[in-house]
This record gives sequence, structure tokens and C-alpha cells, in this order.
Amino acid sequence: MSNKIKVAIAGYGNLGRGVESALAQNPDMQLVGVFSRRDPVTVELLNKDVPVYAMADIEQFQDQVDVMILCGGSRSDLPEQGPYLAQFFNTVDSFDTHAKVNEHFAALDAPAKKAGKLALLSVGWDPGLFSLNRMFGETILSEGETYTFWGKGLSQGHSDAVRRVEGVKSGVQYTLPSEAAIERVRAGEQPELTTREKHIRQCFIVLDEGADAETVRTSIVTMPDYFADYDTEVNFIDQATFEKDHSSMPHGGFVIRSGVTGSGNKQTIEYSLALGSNPEFTASVLVAYARAVHKLAGLGEVGAKTVLDVPPGLLSPKDPAQLRLDLL
Amino acid sequence: MSNKIKVAIAGYGNLGRGVESALAQNPDMQLVGVFSRRDPVTVELLNKDVPVYAMADIEQFQDQVDVMILCGGSRSDLPEQGPYLAQFFNTVDSFDTHAKVNEHFAALDAPAKKAGKLALLSVGWDPGLFSLNRMFGETILSEGETYTFWGKGLSQGHSDAVRRVEGVKSGVQYTLPSEAAIERVRAGEQPELTTREKHIRQCFIVLDEGADAETVRTSIVTMPDYFADYDTEVNFIDQATFEKDHSSMPHGGFVIRSGVTGSGNKQTIEYSLALGSNPEFTASVLVAYARAVHKLAGLGEVGAKTVLDVPPGLLSPKDPAQLRLDLL
Ligand SMILES: NC(=O)c1ccc[n+]([C@@H]2O[C@H](COP(=O)([O-])OP(=O)(O)OC[C@H]3O[C@@H](n4cnc5c(N)ncnc54)[C@H](OP(=O)(O)O)[C@@H]3O)[C@@H](O)[C@H]2O)c1
Ligand SMILES: NC(=O)c1ccc[n+]([C@@H]2O[C@H](COP(=O)([O-])OP(=O)(O)OC[C@H]3O[C@@H](n4cnc5c(N)ncnc54)[C@H](OP(=O)(O)O)[C@@H]3O)[C@@H](O)[C@H]2O)c1
Repeated sequence: MSNKIKVAIAGYGNLGRGVESALAQNPDMQLVGVFSRRDPVTVELLNKDVPVYAMADIEQFQDQVDVMILCGGSRSDLPEQGPYLAQFFNTVDSFDTHAKVNEHFAALDAPAKKAGKLALLSVGWDPGLFSLNRMFGETILSEGETYTFWGKGLSQGHSDAVRRVEGVKSGVQYTLPSEAAIERVRAGEQPELTTREKHIRQCFIVLDEGADAETVRTSIVTMPDYFADYDTEVNFIDQATFEKDHSSMPHGGFVIRSGVTGSGNKQTIEYSLALGSNPEFTASVLVAYARAVHKLAGLGEVGAKTVLDVPPGLLSPKDPAQLRLDLL
Repeated sequence: MSNKIKVAIAGYGNLGRGVESALAQNPDMQLVGVFSRRDPVTVELLNKDVPVYAMADIEQFQDQVDVMILCGGSRSDLPEQGPYLAQFFNTVDSFDTHAKVNEHFAALDAPAKKAGKLALLSVGWDPGLFSLNRMFGETILSEGETYTFWGKGLSQGHSDAVRRVEGVKSGVQYTLPSEAAIERVRAGEQPELTTREKHIRQCFIVLDEGADAETVRTSIVTMPDYFADYDTEVNFIDQATFEKDHSSMPHGGFVIRSGVTGSGNKQTIEYSLALGSNPEFTASVLVAYARAVHKLAGLGEVGAKTVLDVPPGLLSPKDPAQLRLDLL
């Protein structure tokens, strides 16, 4: 098929690899190349037939790419690469620095409009699908409260902290939503909950030879800032179990809107994700939105956009009449 | 505020009453009137200050209404009222006869385009929000299975059937999703499930004076077509409890997408609704989409549309920059 959507990846880390996998699951799209700041010969793709190019040469590929998916980090890569690449390509990124979303929007909007391109920012699950569900919740049930819970998810910072505790050989920390808090929300209580009340922390630890479990547990659960204020569960396991069960990057969470209509009828909308791999799922969302960007660009839309601006049906490879028949 | 969105209701049953309530929760919108085929003096609104008009006079109100929300029944009202009213108004309806959605679409599209109006069809939760979630699920996780479970919900037809059983004074039947089936889906098994395997039936019965509970139970659970093929639970209660606990119209359900990405990572997206009142919730969805219709019409869009065509952010009364700040 020569009319496949031609996609390229800018930046090849966890997310970039996920986008490569997701594109292979979507036969209407084709990965034309990966761009990296590293020496291309050192970057190994899953599919050796796909070329890796130097980021420095990317401008030469303007006519060969319908949509560029930006997989750099939100902290320092995307604020620089986004506005630069929006001059040459329709782009999609997963920018997740909440406080700077409107700043990033403005930085993309000007070059994209000037070039007649479309730049879709903050695509993924949070921000992204969770944002959409928060919007539907607060708008449909206008009298109510919205709750976001995260987890079960691996926390990098807290895992680093437990590994620094004396006597810990290997360690990992997961943040879990508190079942008790979720039940109160589902029951329509509309409680006021702090982040701490909404979550518990769960550690899996392999001890150093001869280390004392009780001492390690106490050091962890009393650690200020990280654990002291939370309900923390510490589990001790052996190294083989650690390697088998704790090397993937699960994540997920819940968005719950609890509202009231009419003469006091309780209404609850709940959206949840249980993700075996956070970067692969985020990548799958990016790829679906890349299809929508291609269609919107074809309709003449330009400038910066978010998931709130995209008609949902454009994500699908099916035509509108087929979608209505299959899904309504 | 004189720049409120002016909304009217065509047809005043459960859904019409729900729309009246929902509009009262949305200060940017105003209910300018209700239209009914019945004699207006016989139709009692929740708010006595809102005028009721004869449906026969509706054409005279073309300049006074921004969006007309159609609350007639899907079987015989909407197929007739929809195309007629699309000649004069921007409309929203909750048409839910799945097999005829494309037919209804075409019947609305022609008059709406001719009149330069917009007609949004099949808005609600199923079809509606569930359709959106089925679309997101199958598109984002392209390798996977989608499951829809309904309930806990009151089934009118099955409630009628139990009330016809000898010895039953009052009775109601709820359809519930099978917890066992949901757990298999959540675990990523991707099982093949029939509607029967996905649901159980729960009855609450008040017995006639002197009737035998065991005889009534047997008559219900062995009833062909209605109950014989299902797991059916029969509960006996007294009349006071029946009136207190079983007079609302709860409903809800689950849309679950179970998929796989990369080298076999399981990913689950789950959307669920627990509705204290089905018509009030559906009405709240209609009202949010009426706001979007008003904005889309202002942008010059015409013809028939579904929720798949509507940029989600347009549902909200907030402006786009505020939405990004609050939700992304
Ligand atoms: N919205 C959401 O729901 C969501 C969810 C998850 C993640 N995210 C976002 O996604 C962003 C990217 O996440 P990620 O896990 O893909 O980050 P990552 O693995 O650290 O990759 C980021 C960049 O680092 C470079 N890199 C990768 N591996 C490298 C290596 N071995 N040596 C040197 N450089 C390397 C790559 O650029 P070069 O190829 O140019 O070197 C890559 O683009 C995060 O910052 C986060 O903001 C968003
Ligand atoms: N998409 C979804 O998720 C969803 C969910 C729930 C329902 N629905 C749809 O909503 C439709 C309407 O549901 P509903 O519960 O509002 O139906 P309903 O109460 O039977 O009302 C339907 C129509 O019947 C007339 N009516 C109401 N009360 C009457 C009375 N006492 N005597 C005579 N006529 C009366 C009204 O028209 P007049 O005022 O002109 O007489 C009204 O518009 C259903 O057909 C269903 O398709 C969709």
C-alpha cells in the first residue's frame, strides 16, 4: 500500500521503542525512519530494516514524513525539539509538565501556524485520556467532585530512595490507590482526600547477606518526605523473584467523577487503566492520535492542539459510516 | 445574562424531565420552553415558570431557540420528529435503535444541510459515551477484545414478566454484570462470552397474601426465554421495602478493552457507569452536547453528526486555555 500514513520518530528511548511496536500493530501506518541525537549506528531498533538518521539531518525529510512523533523527555527535550520540529512537520508529543502546558502550547502554536503545520501536544494517558475523562466528568455531572488516583505504578524516585537504605540489595516501590478511599468515592460520599490518603506505598526488597529485615523495614517506613506520612507495606523477597516479577514498568490509575442529578440521585463515572507497560501504552495513544493529526492536517487545520480539540472518530482507521454501524 | 444558550425540549417524558433538571445545573444555559403533543395545560413541569407550548406551534419558535433537545421515544417519535425539526432547529437526540442508526443519520442529514442546521444523533450513554469508549479501546489497543456489560439496571420487560407470575403482588427485575466474567476479562484472558454468561438476573418480589415462596421462585427461574438460561436470584421482601428501595431507575454498565502491546504486555482500559437515575444521567449528557452543538453551529458546521464527530472540549463551558490549565 503506497497510501499508508508515513510516520517518523524523533528520539528513541522507552517511548520511541513503544511507538515502533505500536506502528507495527497498525497496518495503515508505516515507520519511515527514526531520528536520534546519538550516532545512528549506536541506536538499535526492534526492526533492523528501519533506517536511523541523525537528528541534525531531520529538515531534509520534510517531504517524506506525514507525522513526526516526538519521543523526547518532557523536561528538557520537548521544550526545545517541539517548536523546532513544528516548523517542518505535523507533530505529536506527550509533554507532561502540567504547570507549563500553556507555555508549551504557545511555543508550538506560532511556528506551526507560520509553517501551516499542526502540533498536537500532551498526548498519552495523563495528560491525555485522563484529561478527557476529567473534562467529560465535570461537564456532564456539573454538581460533583473529580478524583484521580494513580497506580498501581512503579515510582522511580521512591525506588531510588529504598535502594539507598543500608541492608537493601535490590528494591522497588509501587504506589497503589487506597481501596478504602476508592470505595468511599464510589459510594458517592464525595470525601475530601489528600494525595496521601488516596494512595499507599508498597516496597519489594531483597536484603543484603546478613541484613536485619526489621531494621530495614523501620528505616523505610519512617523515612521523612518519602514514606513517613504514608501507609507503607514492605515485602521481602529473593533476588530471583525480584528479577522475574519486578522488571516491567506497570502503571495505571483511576479518574472517578461522583455527582448528583435531579432530586439527589447519585451518579458515578469511573475510568481506569491497568497498564502492563506504561511507555508501550502511552505510545499506542500517540500512534492513534498521529492518525487523527494526519486527517486534521488534510482538512487544513493548523497550529497547536490538544486531545480536547480532536474529534474522536478521527483516531480510527474506519470510515465514519462503518464506525456508526459498529459502535453506536 | 442575556447571552445564555437558549434551549427548548421537544417531548416531555422521563428524559424531558431529566433535561429540565440538568439545565438548572448549568448556569450558561436557559430553558425557554417545552413542546408537547399533549394539551399544554395537562403537562406539569418541575419549574412552573417555564412555558409549555403545543408541538403544532413549534415552527414559530425558530428564532427563539439555539438548540432543540428531542426527548421523544426512539421507536416511533424520533424517526418522525427528528427529520421534521431538523428543518428549523439545531437538534440533539438520544436515538438508540442500533440497527437503524445510519438510516436515522441519513434522514436527518438531508433536511439539516438544506436548512443550514446541525443535527446530533444518538447522544447518551449507550449509544453515546459507551460508543466513544469502544472506539478509543479498539483504536488504541488494536490487538485485543472489547466487552460491554450492562447493569446494574432495571429491565422493564423482565419486570413485567415476573409480575405476571401467580402469587406475585409487586416485582422488579435487575440485570447485573457477572462479577466472575468481569474478573476473567480484567485478568486479560480475553474469553469468548455470550450475553447470558456476562449477566445475571436479580428479582425482588412481594408475595400475595398466602402465596408460596418456593412455588413462585420455581415459576420465575424456569420461565423460558426470560430466565431459564440465566443465573437468576429471587429475593422476597415486604411492600414497604419494595416501595422504599425499588422505585428509582438505576442503570449502568462497563466497557472493557483488553489488549496486548509490544512483546506481550497486557493492557486494560475500563469505563464504567453506576447511575442512580438512567434518564437523568442521559439527560445530563444531552445537555452537555447541546452546548457543543451551539458552538459547532456557530463555527458553520451543518448536517448530521454523532459524538464521534464532536471535539470533546466543546462540551465544556470553560474556554480552551482554562481547560488546558485545569485538566491537562
Ligand atoms: N502523557 C503521558 O501519559 C506520558 C506517559 C509516559 C511518559 N510520558 C513522557 O514521555 C517522555 C519520554 O519518556 P521515555 O521513557 O521514553 O524517556 P527516555 O527513555 O529517557 O527517552 C528520552 C530521550 O532520551 C534519549 N535516550 C534514550 N535512551 C538513551 C540512551 N541509552 N542513552 C542516551 N540517550 C538516550 C532519547 O533521545 P535520542 O534518541 O535523541 O538520544 C530519547 O528521546 C517523558 O519525559 C514523559 O514526559 C508521558
Ligand atoms: N442513548 C442512551 O443512552 C439512552 C438512554 C436512555 C434513554 N434513551 C432514549 O430516550 C428515549 C425516551 O425515553 P423516556 O424514558 O423519556 O420515554 P417516555 O417517558 O416514554 O417519553 C417519551 C415521549 O412520550 C410522551 N409522554 C411522556 N409522558 C407521557 C404521558 N404521561 N402520557 C402521554 N405521553 C407521554 C412524551 O411526548 P409528548 O410530550 O409529546 O407527549 C415523551 O417525549 C427512549 O426511547 C430511549 O430511546 C437513550
